[in-house]
Amino acid sequence: MADKKVEAITSMEEDFAQWYTDVVVKADLTGYTSVKGFMVLKPAGYAIWELIQKQLDARFKETGVENVYLPMLIPEGLLQKEKDHVEGFAPEVAWVTHGGLNELQEKLCVRPTSETLFCDFYQKDITSYRDLPKVYNQWCSVVRWEKETRPFLRSREFLWQEGHTAHATAEEAEERTIQMLNVYADFCEQVLAIPVVKGQKTEKEKFAGAVSTYTIEALMHDGKALQSGTSHNFGDGFARAFGVQYADKDNQLKYVHQTSWGVTTRLIGAIIMVHGDDNGLKLPPMIAPTQVMIVPIQQKKEGVLEKAEELRERLSKVSRVKVDATDKSPGFKFAECEMRGIPVRVEIGPRDIENNQCVVVRRDTGEKISVSLDELEVTVEELLKTIQKDMLEAARAHRDSHTYTATTWEEFVETVNNKPGFIKAMWCGETECEENIKAETGASTRCMPFEQENLSDVCVCCGKPAKKMVYFGRAY
Amino acid sequence: MADKKVEAITSMEEDFAQWYTDVVVKADLTGYTSVKGFMVLKPAGYAIWELIQKQLDARFKETGVENVYLPMLIPEGLLQKEKDHVEGFAPEVAWVTHGGLNELQEKLCVRPTSETLFCDFYQKDITSYRDLPKVYNQWCSVVRWEKETRPFLRSREFLWQEGHTAHATAEEAEERTIQMLNVYADFCEQVLAIPVVKGQKTEKEKFAGAVSTYTIEALMHDGKALQSGTSHNFGDGFARAFGVQYADKDNQLKYVHQTSWGVTTRLIGAIIMVHGDDNGLKLPPMIAPTQVMIVPIQQKKEGVLEKAEELRERLSKVSRVKVDATDKSPGFKFAECEMRGIPVRVEIGPRDIENNQCVVVRRDTGEKISVSLDELEVTVEELLKTIQKDMLEAARAHRDSHTYTATTWEEFVETVNNKPGFIKAMWCGETECEENIKAETGASTRCMPFEQENLSDVCVCCGKPAKKMVYFGRAY
Repeated sequence: MADKKVEAITSMEEDFAQWYTDVVVKADLTGYTSVKGFMVLKPAGYAIWELIQKQLDARFKETGVENVYLPMLIPEGLLQKEKDHVEGFAPEVAWVTHGGLNELQEKLCVRPTSETLFCDFYQKDITSYRDLPKVYNQWCSVVRWEKETRPFLRSREFLWQEGHTAHATAEEAEERTIQMLNVYADFCEQVLAIPVVKGQKTEKEKFAGAVSTYTIEALMHDGKALQSGTSHNFGDGFARAFGVQYADKDNQLKYVHQTSWGVTTRLIGAIIMVHGDDNGLKLPPMIAPTQVMIVPIQQKKEGVLEKAEELRERLSKVSRVKVDATDKSPGFKFAECEMRGIPVRVEIGPRDIENNQCVVVRRDTGEKISVSLDELEVTVEELLKTIQKDMLEAARAHRDSHTYTATTWEEFVETVNNKPGFIKAMWCGETECEENIKAETGASTRCMPFEQENLSDVCVCCGKPAKKMVYFGRAY
Repeated sequence: MADKKVEAITSMEEDFAQWYTDVVVKADLTGYTSVKGFMVLKPAGYAIWELIQKQLDARFKETGVENVYLPMLIPEGLLQKEKDHVEGFAPEVAWVTHGGLNELQEKLCVRPTSETLFCDFYQKDITSYRDLPKVYNQWCSVVRWEKETRPFLRSREFLWQEGHTAHATAEEAEERTIQMLNVYADFCEQVLAIPVVKGQKTEKEKFAGAVSTYTIEALMHDGKALQSGTSHNFGDGFARAFGVQYADKDNQLKYVHQTSWGVTTRLIGAIIMVHGDDNGLKLPPMIAPTQVMIVPIQQKKEGVLEKAEELRERLSKVSRVKVDATDKSPGFKFAECEMRGIPVRVEIGPRDIENNQCVVVRRDTGEKISVSLDELEVTVEELLKTIQKDMLEAARAHRDSHTYTATTWEEFVETVNNKPGFIKAMWCGETECEENIKAETGASTRCMPFEQENLSDVCVCCGKPAKKMVYFGRAY
């Protein structure tokens, strides 16, 4: 029975895209409705998002972020105020044209992102330097009319948070932009166990309307990159377009400097593709809605279910724990724990009870150990920490062993085609070269990392003097 | 300065509607954008919603509720499947007609509520009795194209939670409907300090598509009622319209029985109108983002700010506490604390420090007490509990003293016109009578309370035999 269910997961090696779809289905993360291109987050999927929200929100608040909520609909006139921004988003928004039984005088788009609305709001809300900084964030959903959709990675609606700040000076805005990128990077590493490369996007890849865009880039198991969070510095461009000014201490009217930053349910896609294996999902303990599943063996025998419940009660003090007391077979339950990515499984049967022990199984390594019931809480608590640490290390080892360098064009092409992963290479800084590389190899610039190296003096593509080392890669 | 700011709040007696608007503005709960009829929740307003969410969600989960997220857009065809439901909602929805650059083949409405989507989802997700019950909830925003809007009470978009459940039997569905109504009632009383009347809506007032609708009704300070939460039993009506069936243990295909239940940001309107006074907002401690504000007196004197910070550190162990160290005058800060409804204010100045004491002021009663710094944590912790309890009692006393009975039509009219509040009266059960009463007096049936009394044998309006005692009232 167990094997049969696992068989339903295509192996990664065979077909990574199908493996991904299978894991999403088998872990019961998403569901379907007849709304095309839109995703349902089922309890197992939404609970991961709740844990992301809770832990990320706490980190935001430590840096002084306050949460707000702005309208989900944006009048066309507002969207059009910033030229680059409207060009970037207008082709992919959903338009509301009728309210109730009447046609609207001005159509409204369902927010694809809320820079324009925050500007409109700040324009009314900010008058003096005393009102600054504004460090606001909202948790909400946005709509972008994507043509091809995949659960978590690309869908017509997704959940996210979008931070929008306004500052008195350019320096302060830049500082906040980098600060939030660091919050994202730490969160990915410490909570999601996903190591990321921090850096700046090129002109071509930056956000519509931004002066500079910073990004964290993660490497998936198939060697493709996933942009996992971005932080933008807008300078005073939006402020000028929307007239967001404040009276400074010197009584002069000045434009504010703005930033925005966001992460989305895409992070769940990253968790799946960084940690998962051919048995299914593998959740880092800090983000696992159920950290420990107790599986009773021969549960109809007297005392087994009672013991399982007793262990649950004890373990609930150190973990999020459940008992699977359904009438499925133990083998089936084991497979289900694995598919759903539960970090630790505890098996307890009549013989274990007799010996005052139980079997503890790690999802990440498959390792089984016998543990005395007297030491169960301590062991499980420690084990969850160890798994969290080991999963980050495993992901880092994978990322590092799939990060290559190329100093010549031949080497670059050869690497892209045969070694899926990040490629570090020097670049002249010209968009034309970047476009050529993409067209020839499918690899795009992921970022200009903060940690620069001098691999060579010339651009890997055109041979002209190099300006930056860049991470390249094929990407989701 | 303090008085001047408070002057900006119109007195309740003079103009309750203007008082409400003034309090919302002065407590800095909402803001404006150019999106007509839509509200911005500013940090002070959103933080209250976050506390509502957190505490209500925990109560939901204790009863086995799991959170999910479904699409925000609903195809027209889905909305039309249940006849009563579409009639109830179609006139007030916003329609998306274009996605990206193309006109959609089928228009989509922005969800006004999600019964139809949950049915569509359950139809695909439920196959066997093993899949039941489904006890799902989502926290999201919905859009209803209201003509007149008021912050929190009525706006074109509002935040809410909507629970949607599916059960094997009619009994189980009814049980869940009542269970959730009780969760709402307990939450309102224990957390928001708002006493409510629990009961059933009449046929005329029930939800579009429901077999029965239950409600909690609260009484505002001006004697008008506010429907504060509803819980609906749909029987198998939606299941039949959408074909939501399961194979039972006897291998027969049966229709599920469904419920839905929701509360909204309207609860914040209730908090304002039940507890507020002419000095502004008055928050029950359990829902106050800041429970204690420390105001330093003569803060430029040596040691004052340090002492204030020391007290903050100590009080943070028993409360959500802040120091107001801005350069505003103490009087201004006091007024601001009052307008924003902060339950406890702590004043600390050089003389207090010398005497090892501080002044503690209750927002609900205005009472001031001197407290030894040695006993500060214990005193404040106790005081917050006392305020919470006293605010519920004060609200209950107001509600009870504004609940009247009428056994004759003359008495009914006299009461509605001269004594704002709830009126308990007997009713024959006919919609016609209910409509007459509304047309003549403006008072609608609020609910048929679970706690019935026999005030007389005949209907207060038509004189025919009475079937139910009903709470009547003018309402928001």
